[in-house]
Amino acid sequence: MRWAVILAGGVGSRFWPLSSPEHPKQLLPLAGDASLLEDALARIAPLVPAQRTLIVTSRALADVIREAMPGLPAENVMAEPVARSTAAALAWATARAARADADAAVVAMHADWAVADAEAFREAAATGLLLAQSEDVLVTVGARPTRVETGYGHVVPGAPLGAGRRIARFVEKPDTAAAESLMFQGALWNTGMFLWTARRFRAEIATHTPELAPGLRALDAGDAEGFFGAVRAVSVDVGVFERTQRGAIVTGDFGWDDVGSWAALRRVRHADAAGNVTHGDAHLVDSTGCVAWTDEGPLVVYGLTNAVVVRARGITLVTTADRAPALKGLLDRLPPGLAGERGA
Amino acid sequence: MRWAVILAGGVGSRFWPLSSPEHPKQLLPLAGDASLLEDALARIAPLVPAQRTLIVTSRALADVIREAMPGLPAENVMAEPVARSTAAALAWATARAARADADAAVVAMHADWAVADAEAFREAAATGLLLAQSEDVLVTVGARPTRVETGYGHVVPGAPLGAGRRIARFVEKPDTAAAESLMFQGALWNTGMFLWTARRFRAEIATHTPELAPGLRALDAGDAEGFFGAVRAVSVDVGVFERTQRGAIVTGDFGWDDVGSWAALRRVRHADAAGNVTHGDAHLVDSTGCVAWTDEGPLVVYGLTNAVVVRARGITLVTTADRAPALKGLLDRLPPGLAGERGA
Repeated sequence: MRWAVILAGGVGSRFWPLSSPEHPKQLLPLAGDASLLEDALARIAPLVPAQRTLIVTSRALADVIREAMPGLPAENVMAEPVARSTAAALAWATARAARADADAAVVAMHADWAVADAEAFREAAATGLLLAQSEDVLVTVGARPTRVETGYGHVVPGAPLGAGRRIARFVEKPDTAAAESLMFQGALWNTGMFLWTARRFRAEIATHTPELAPGLRALDAGDAEGFFGAVRAVSVDVGVFERTQRGAIVTGDFGWDDVGSWAALRRVRHADAAGNVTHGDAHLVDSTGCVAWTDEGPLVVYGLTNAVVVRARGITLVTTADRAPALKGLLDRLPPGLAGERGA
Repeated sequence: MRWAVILAGGVGSRFWPLSSPEHPKQLLPLAGDASLLEDALARIAPLVPAQRTLIVTSRALADVIREAMPGLPAENVMAEPVARSTAAALAWATARAARADADAAVVAMHADWAVADAEAFREAAATGLLLAQSEDVLVTVGARPTRVETGYGHVVPGAPLGAGRRIARFVEKPDTAAAESLMFQGALWNTGMFLWTARRFRAEIATHTPELAPGLRALDAGDAEGFFGAVRAVSVDVGVFERTQRGAIVTGDFGWDDVGSWAALRRVRHADAAGNVTHGDAHLVDSTGCVAWTDEGPLVVYGLTNAVVVRARGITLVTTADRAPALKGLLDRLPPGLAGERGA
C-alpha cells in the first residue's frame, strides 16, 4: 500500500524574525492561510490516508505538530531522538511502514514546500510510485527549471525507463554558468520528492550507505534510540541516490518551490499588479516587487523596489530581495540576544 | 528688556507615524535626547530668562507643554483660541510682552528647529536685537546656504545697515535652478528667526497688515478671543516683512535646520561612519545613509541605502530619503483610519 513520509524537522533562520525554534518555517503560513505542513498534508491526503502518513520531526516540535494536526494519529508524528540528516530519517520512517506493511511503497517529501498544482503533484507521485514498483528502482521527482537557479541541486536524466528516465548524474548547486548550461541540456531540479518500495530502499542502504549500516539491526527491530545512536549523518541524495545503480527520475511540473527565503514569497503567494506580496495589514504605495509581512500593526511601504519588510515577534526587519537568502549570515553579525531566537 | 517668543503650535504629518496630534514634531526628541521644544528653551535660556519666554501653541497642546516644561511659568504657555498663522500669533505674544514692558525687544523663533551651535545662535539673536533697536527695524536672521535647497524661503540682502543689511527681496521656495542662482548671488535662507521691538512691530502691522487691523483694539486690550475672532490668517513673512520698508537681515551661521522630514535627521543627529542615524534598538548592517527609528523592539536594516525605517505607535513605515518629504501626500493615499492620527 501507499505510504507518505513528510520530513518536518527543519530548523533554520531564513524566515527570521517570524520563524523561531517553536515556530519553524514548516509551521508558518508562508504560501497561504495554512502552514506549509498543513498544505503538505492536504496535498497528499487524496493519495494516501492519514493512517499511513508519517511525519518525522524533532522531539522539540513533535507535540506542537500533533496539536496542529488533529486529523493525524498522534503516533504518526515520529520524534527523532537526535537529528542525523535525511537518509536516517527516511530509513527510520520507511522501516516503520515496512513493519506494518511488507509491501509498503513510500512517497517522501519535505514539509516546507509550496506547490502550485496539487493535482499534478499527486499525478507525479502516482507515476513515480508505479515506476518504483514496476522497475524496482528508487525514484526522484525532477521539476523542469523555470529560471536559472544556483540554489537547487540539478539532475541530468539518462536513458528512458518506463514512465521516467534513468539518472545520468547529479549536480549540486551549480554556479550561474553551469546552471544555464544544465537548463539548456534539459536537466531537472531535484525536488527532494522521492518514491520507493520499502523493500528496495532497505536493500540499497544496506549495500551503499555505510553511514547507516551499524544501525540496521536496531532499525529493523524498531529501536529508534539504538538506530540513531549508531548512525552518522548523510543526506539521502548523497548517501543513497548518488551511489545506487537503481536510481530513476520522473518529471513533475507542479509549480514546486522550496520557499528558500523571504524573497521566494513573491513566487508562492498571490502578487498584486505591481508584483508585491503581503501578509497582514500591509499597504504598499508606489512600490514594486516587495514582500511586506506584518503580524503586529499596520505596515506601510512607500517608494521601495524589491524590498523585504517583516514585523513579527516584536522585531522589525528590512532588507532586499537580493539579500534575503543571506539572512543566516546576517544573524551571525547581530548581537546574540537578538539573533538567538532563530527559526527555520 | 529681551523677550523670547517660541511658536509651538505646528501640527503636520512629516514625522508620521511617530508624530500624532498629542505628540507633534516639536515634542519629539528628533535632534537629540530632549524634545525640539526643550532644546529651543535651553538654547535661548542664557539670553532670555524663563519669566520672559512665551510659548504660543494650540489649546490642545497647551497642557501637554506646561507639563513638559516645568521650569516655565504656566501662564507663559499661551493657547491660541484658534490658529491664524504666524503674523497673528506673533502679534499676540508681542503685545503681551509690551503690556508688561513697553520697551520689550522680542526674539521670535519656532519650536521645531535643530541648531548645531547654540552659542552662535545666541550671538546672532543678540546682534539682531541690537540692530532692531538701534535702527528701529524688523530683523530676520539668514543662514548661509550649505546646499541647493528648494524647500526654504530665500532672502537677497541689500545695502549694509549697521551689523546687518537691508532686505532686497524675498524668494519663496525657488526651483532648483533659481536656488542655485540665489546661492551664487549670496542669498540667505530665511530661518524664521525674527527680532523686533514691540513698539516697531505694532506700528508696522498697523500700517501694512490689513489682515490683523480689525483686531488691533482687542489685541491692545489683551482680549485674545476678540483678537483671533477678528483677524485673517497671514504669515509674518508675507503679511509684514514683504510689505514693510523697515526690514533688515543679519547672518547667522549656527547650523540651522528646520528638520523638515525624516530624511533631515541625517543632518541633525549623530551619523555613524556609514552615514546612518538611529534611535532605539536599531542595527544597521551593510547599509548606508539610512534613518532607523524604533520605539518598539529591535529594528534590523540589512543591505539598504538611503532608506527611512520607523517603528512607532504600533505602525511600521518604510520609505526612502527621497520620498520622506512627500509623506503628507502618502497619508492622503492611505485608509483614513490608518493615516488619520497625524502629527506634526
